[in-house]
Amino acid sequence: MAGAAAATNGRLRKRVVILGGGFGGLNAARGLAHLPVDVTLVDRKNHHTFQPLLYQVALAVLSPADIAQPIRSILSRQKNTEVLMDEAIGFDLERKLVLLKTGARLEYDYLILATGSTHSYFGKDGWSKLAPGLKTVEDATEIRRRVLLAFELAERQMLETGSHPALNFVIIGGGPTGVELAGAISDIAKLYMARDFRHINPGQAQVVILEGSPHILGAYPDDLQVSARKQLEALGVQLRTNTKVTDVQPGYVMVGDTRIDAVVTLWAAGVQASPLGKLLGVETDKKGCVVVDQYLNPPGHPEIFVCGDLAQVMQDGKQVPGVAQPAMQMGTYAAERIGRLIGASHGSDGTGNSKGFRYFDKGDMATIGRTAAVANIKWPFKAHWSGFPAWLTWLFVHIFFLVGFQNRFFVFWSWAWTYLGEKDGVRLITGSQELPGWETSDGAYGTLTTKPLEAELPAVR
Amino acid sequence: MAGAAAATNGRLRKRVVILGGGFGGLNAARGLAHLPVDVTLVDRKNHHTFQPLLYQVALAVLSPADIAQPIRSILSRQKNTEVLMDEAIGFDLERKLVLLKTGARLEYDYLILATGSTHSYFGKDGWSKLAPGLKTVEDATEIRRRVLLAFELAERQMLETGSHPALNFVIIGGGPTGVELAGAISDIAKLYMARDFRHINPGQAQVVILEGSPHILGAYPDDLQVSARKQLEALGVQLRTNTKVTDVQPGYVMVGDTRIDAVVTLWAAGVQASPLGKLLGVETDKKGCVVVDQYLNPPGHPEIFVCGDLAQVMQDGKQVPGVAQPAMQMGTYAAERIGRLIGASHGSDGTGNSKGFRYFDKGDMATIGRTAAVANIKWPFKAHWSGFPAWLTWLFVHIFFLVGFQNRFFVFWSWAWTYLGEKDGVRLITGSQELPGWETSDGAYGTLTTKPLEAELPAVR
Repeated sequence: MAGAAAATNGRLRKRVVILGGGFGGLNAARGLAHLPVDVTLVDRKNHHTFQPLLYQVALAVLSPADIAQPIRSILSRQKNTEVLMDEAIGFDLERKLVLLKTGARLEYDYLILATGSTHSYFGKDGWSKLAPGLKTVEDATEIRRRVLLAFELAERQMLETGSHPALNFVIIGGGPTGVELAGAISDIAKLYMARDFRHINPGQAQVVILEGSPHILGAYPDDLQVSARKQLEALGVQLRTNTKVTDVQPGYVMVGDTRIDAVVTLWAAGVQASPLGKLLGVETDKKGCVVVDQYLNPPGHPEIFVCGDLAQVMQDGKQVPGVAQPAMQMGTYAAERIGRLIGASHGSDGTGNSKGFRYFDKGDMATIGRTAAVANIKWPFKAHWSGFPAWLTWLFVHIFFLVGFQNRFFVFWSWAWTYLGEKDGVRLITGSQELPGWETSDGAYGTLTTKPLEAELPAVR
Repeated sequence: MAGAAAATNGRLRKRVVILGGGFGGLNAARGLAHLPVDVTLVDRKNHHTFQPLLYQVALAVLSPADIAQPIRSILSRQKNTEVLMDEAIGFDLERKLVLLKTGARLEYDYLILATGSTHSYFGKDGWSKLAPGLKTVEDATEIRRRVLLAFELAERQMLETGSHPALNFVIIGGGPTGVELAGAISDIAKLYMARDFRHINPGQAQVVILEGSPHILGAYPDDLQVSARKQLEALGVQLRTNTKVTDVQPGYVMVGDTRIDAVVTLWAAGVQASPLGKLLGVETDKKGCVVVDQYLNPPGHPEIFVCGDLAQVMQDGKQVPGVAQPAMQMGTYAAERIGRLIGASHGSDGTGNSKGFRYFDKGDMATIGRTAAVANIKWPFKAHWSGFPAWLTWLFVHIFFLVGFQNRFFVFWSWAWTYLGEKDGVRLITGSQELPGWETSDGAYGTLTTKPLEAELPAVR
């Protein structure tokens, strides 16, 4: 019934299918709002996640709802657009069909592929359980659970046995995510948790970043790399560059023959493109990114646009980075390009979409703990900022770009309260109480070593 | 080391072990703050949950962190108290020991047992997966996931097949929890979700309450029961009293031979006491509540206090109800009683703790949707209120009692925004996308019926 109606409808107007509700897909959808097209946005999740702030959910400063919003709500007033919670599992490029997991297929005249990237454990998929990465709200709450639980289990073990494993938090990867996680864990331990425990000293927590390359924040200019290193060391974070992890085990990681103990191990190293890129059957690079031309089309497919992390876009001999800004710009570009192709009037951001896509780089920022950051500012002026000024810039840019006014409002206040020390943050442990590396007597991992009840133990306290 | 130190310490001062960080345990701990005792509070969770607002987390108005707070943070400034995240699994009343799951044992001079209650499926434990109840933050997010996912799956199926199962939300149990869930689901469907969907009409969602007894809100006076029924029916909620559920299946429930379809089934019926009551080895009633005397002691154990849902306290021939107020008062009483027993000075709330415990009943309230409620006020004056005045009373009482000022602040604003229609609420679906009752082709439950990709389907739209 609705199917039929929609079908008739579909005959009259071009159909655009957008896969992915991240920065790329959402901006494409918005760009298509006033064009004579029918838009269907498909995402596995019901919500858009503001990934730049995800680490603050992971480290208990913000709640998931502060930085994630239902895609339906964001687009609810956009009448030519519908949202479908489903998953694409294949394509029929001949007949211009997207095959969905639930067995239905979506016809398209234009396809915008913006399904982003996921973690790459370099083929060691067994590591993913032991060292979660940070891409989704679920990842964030899992990381939060593990970090907070480590302190609880240490307190418990200290109380019972008078000792506990060293509170080493090992972060694999020294990019922006690794740096932001490291700063935030160190803050939590030193600032927020210090007064809550009686037997352990959370301030003794040691955060270690293991980076395979010679430098952290490899994409940043040298002076900011140096400054970031100083700021991290000021927070007591230990940096080990040129350090390639060879194994990840419950309770420790191996670097060659060196064992590094870890109550919690986090993954901020490799990423790989969403598998949908390969399913297109066009050329992809080794990360699975789709090689596209200046119009973001795979060669020979002017009706297909690939945006964000999933696209391999070369500019001035370098690949455009897989972060939020380029993804947003690509989404907007794809929408404008479609407007031009169907000969409809369309808004313009001045970049002129008869030309190919060009990434307009305003710069990059990474926070280092509570009040420090590095900012490589390229627009409206060029500057390299560090410390508090960089952090303030970061704060306002992120507040400004956060989807949804009410979220901005709440995030701002959460931060205000947290930084004023009045708010405890969101330190809830939900879900399992198991943590890899804390052995049980039966050899399984999870809780602390249990002692037989029959045994004559000295009672605690 | 710490163990030793604590042990010496323990020789000098009486030790109080509190099991459970709910209203009873938390108030007991606070009452002991200024007594010369060492207090250990043990809870499986790291957080206290403000259960009266849990249904608002379940129905996406509030975030978990708005109504739950780490027990450590709440008690962090209370120097004679330590918090342990662990679980009691047994007692040695002779030697005054609590056995913990992790194998340690806690010595006590006084034991306060306040581990509350859990759902009772009347022996049909298989129902728990199909009809979750509402006791913990995890329960709340699971209910939220199911309710929101039902709309998503219906939209998806409508888009693909032109029809979807009736959006029946069945709530088993017509007590305060059932009534509050019913009102909130009806609100979400009619107010917040209406504009977000293109193919289904969320307003057609039908909420059904199945109550075994002749009346909903059985504990309330007749006039308020009648008023509650009217207010629920005004919201379009269907009430079926004298209706005993005989089976719960994925996608439907059975009442005798009658099948009632249900995309989501929720459990708000029976509760049973925490198993720890029985482990004490003293007399318990059929629900597992510990029979206590006027001092909240099980007969013959003046050193053991049982508080909250777990205690069977008779007063004026009726059992004191298992809600927040009596639990708080019992916790406070137990602390004062201990103060008196050890001959220490102590605060008094005027109830006079040389006398036995007496529940001072200020009344009960239950909300019915967004702006209605029933309030059976007994203090400071007697009144039966309905509708908006009752709801306002409910609002301010709950804001006032919510633990933690920053939470109050955020909850208040969340409500303001939500009720002003400016906030979308917390409509995030996290975790699995499976929902019992939506059959897959392979017969498993979870996603929609999938169609073979080979089959020639009419494409969607």
